[in-house]
Amino acid sequence: MDYYALSLQKHKEYKWKLEIQSKVPLKTREDLSTYYSPGVAQPCLEIAKDPKSAYEYTWKWNTIAIVSDGSAVLGLWNIWGLASLPVMEWKSVLFKEFWGVNCIPIVLNTQDPDEVIKIVEGISPTFGGINLEDISAPHCFYIEEELKKRLNIPVFHDDQHGTAVVVLAALINALRLTGKNKEDVKIVLNWPWAAGIAIIKLLWLYGVNHIVAVDTQWTLNSQRTDINIYKKSILQYNINDEGWDLKQVLKWADVFIWSSKWNILTKEDIATMAPKAIIFALANPTPEIMPDEAKAWWAYIVWTGRSDFPNQINNLLVFPWIFRWTLDGGLKQIEDKHKLAAAIALAGYVKDPTPENIIPSPLDKGVASIIAEAVKHA
Amino acid sequence: MDYYALSLQKHKEYKWKLEIQSKVPLKTREDLSTYYSPGVAQPCLEIAKDPKSAYEYTWKWNTIAIVSDGSAVLGLWNIWGLASLPVMEWKSVLFKEFWGVNCIPIVLNTQDPDEVIKIVEGISPTFGGINLEDISAPHCFYIEEELKKRLNIPVFHDDQHGTAVVVLAALINALRLTGKNKEDVKIVLNWPWAAGIAIIKLLWLYGVNHIVAVDTQWTLNSQRTDINIYKKSILQYNINDEGWDLKQVLKWADVFIWSSKWNILTKEDIATMAPKAIIFALANPTPEIMPDEAKAWWAYIVWTGRSDFPNQINNLLVFPWIFRWTLDGGLKQIEDKHKLAAAIALAGYVKDPTPENIIPSPLDKGVASIIAEAVKHA
Repeated sequence: MDYYALSLQKHKEYKWKLEIQSKVPLKTREDLSTYYSPGVAQPCLEIAKDPKSAYEYTWKWNTIAIVSDGSAVLGLWNIWGLASLPVMEWKSVLFKEFWGVNCIPIVLNTQDPDEVIKIVEGISPTFGGINLEDISAPHCFYIEEELKKRLNIPVFHDDQHGTAVVVLAALINALRLTGKNKEDVKIVLNWPWAAGIAIIKLLWLYGVNHIVAVDTQWTLNSQRTDINIYKKSILQYNINDEGWDLKQVLKWADVFIWSSKWNILTKEDIATMAPKAIIFALANPTPEIMPDEAKAWWAYIVWTGRSDFPNQINNLLVFPWIFRWTLDGGLKQIEDKHKLAAAIALAGYVKDPTPENIIPSPLDKGVASIIAEAVKHA
Repeated sequence: MDYYALSLQKHKEYKWKLEIQSKVPLKTREDLSTYYSPGVAQPCLEIAKDPKSAYEYTWKWNTIAIVSDGSAVLGLWNIWGLASLPVMEWKSVLFKEFWGVNCIPIVLNTQDPDEVIKIVEGISPTFGGINLEDISAPHCFYIEEELKKRLNIPVFHDDQHGTAVVVLAALINALRLTGKNKEDVKIVLNWPWAAGIAIIKLLWLYGVNHIVAVDTQWTLNSQRTDINIYKKSILQYNINDEGWDLKQVLKWADVFIWSSKWNILTKEDIATMAPKAIIFALANPTPEIMPDEAKAWWAYIVWTGRSDFPNQINNLLVFPWIFRWTLDGGLKQIEDKHKLAAAIALAGYVKDPTPENIIPSPLDKGVASIIAEAVKHA
């Protein structure tokens, strides 16, 4: 099916896809007097006295902002804020549909990280949390870090941490299925950037010790002088310090996490990998290699980010509940232990994994309570 | 009835009063593929090519932000952004209920006018218009002026222009009813500030020539060295240049527009005014004088800003349709001629005005099309 043409048509047709609504009856002057003027003065005064009471009298208890500068959207990369609005709107739809969270799309007219920080800080009293979305590295690291320091509501960069949680969940089940174990499994990840660095750090936390990152032609290693501080930060997780090229690394690997599209992976390359190779072809909307092609040549399990193939690695499994749960729990930060617990619970939710069914469908609404419960005890 | 206690209780009870909703069915993987990934890439690319198409593919065609720094809220004055959120939420409810406009409350953590401008400019790609609300003078003048220059979506400071339109509409019908005419009627306005200055300018545009503004003890006049540029800007509309005190001015006046609460007006003062005195006691939530008291002593017609008295001067009669109409018409600015046409249409909507029924109820949904039609031909 041509999803692109259909999508365009449906976006025009469903102009009202995302709306504000109120369920409070406002029919009489009495209603107006109670809720609006003069009555509304009272909750205002309460909040002025005790800012925490905003969670009782306003939508702050159940509302977050999804903020993007449009600098790293899906496979489209830098299309700027306005053009990223459809993505943010659908994330908002999904937030509500799956987890009952009000999520307000906010797209920006700047990509200057300090301005982004100022703007998000500026509007933050309105919301109970901030979901950063599709903001390119390295700005995303600085922006998230700085906002976490400045705001007293949770801040979560979905592209980093949402992706990392789902990838770890999928990996856990792939290990179960292939009989490989986390202490020995050899993992390559290309493009150690926003998602890539977060994935590596979370896998390490889980106890996966053999990880190599490839940026251009060569693996990251401490002799290289051309890598920035963010890439340097994952050298401690890098098992190989010699500098291999991509071909060498593939021969060594059990798992390839292809988090960017380079158009260089061939079917023959996959055949050089270890038996029961596990491929994450995560680039969106077009993965580095199509699942059928990869499987025909060797790979045992393949994930993509798309809804039209099995085993979708979709942040939808993570970002809404992260906020459902922090909002309900009144948490101020989302920590590593929460992400780890979420990944383990997500993997455990699939009772009998198969190569075609290794993580829950993003449409499975049963995931929510399982994860929330696990994270609560983290 | 104790609206304050009831309001507090209802705000707790109706925590979900304002919500995001979607009417698009999202049930299958097919749906996800069409609307979200990979399909959503297509509208993104279209908007990247042609920014105007955001009005076709996103909620921009029907969504505005209501932005406040909480510096001049109702009669509560400076309670800061967070505490003003209940007011913004109810305005949002009203926007949707009466005019189908999605209105997103955005409350700020700063009151620095340059920062407010940067923040609103920063989030502006998300919206089809900006409604500034409850921002104190003189910042509100600078912020509105600057944003109008920088943004290509309409910007409207409700407290200034919304109030001015409703006051003019009410005045037009008061003149009909009392047989006074616009060329001779004598008007005093206290507190020539955000709303006050806008009212004076709009009345002048309508052809009311005898207006005097009183700030503290004295009327504004060109000999005074203690008035700022904003107050100076209305000296051209000031019929009296001698410097009267409040008592003198009252004896002269047919109309008193009491746009702030000073707690100095007595029943006896009202008795010194011209026959069939017209009083606007607009301070919220407590007017300078209660209608029954004013009427017992002389006043013929009294307005307040409250829903629990007749003749409510409520911006609700203006701000939602201003945006309904600019969004539908694709207008980039709201001009003086639009405000004037709106006021005249609003007055004309009341076929047989009486002292108790001189402007439409804010709950009368029939106002919409009448005003929209009038403004379209302005």
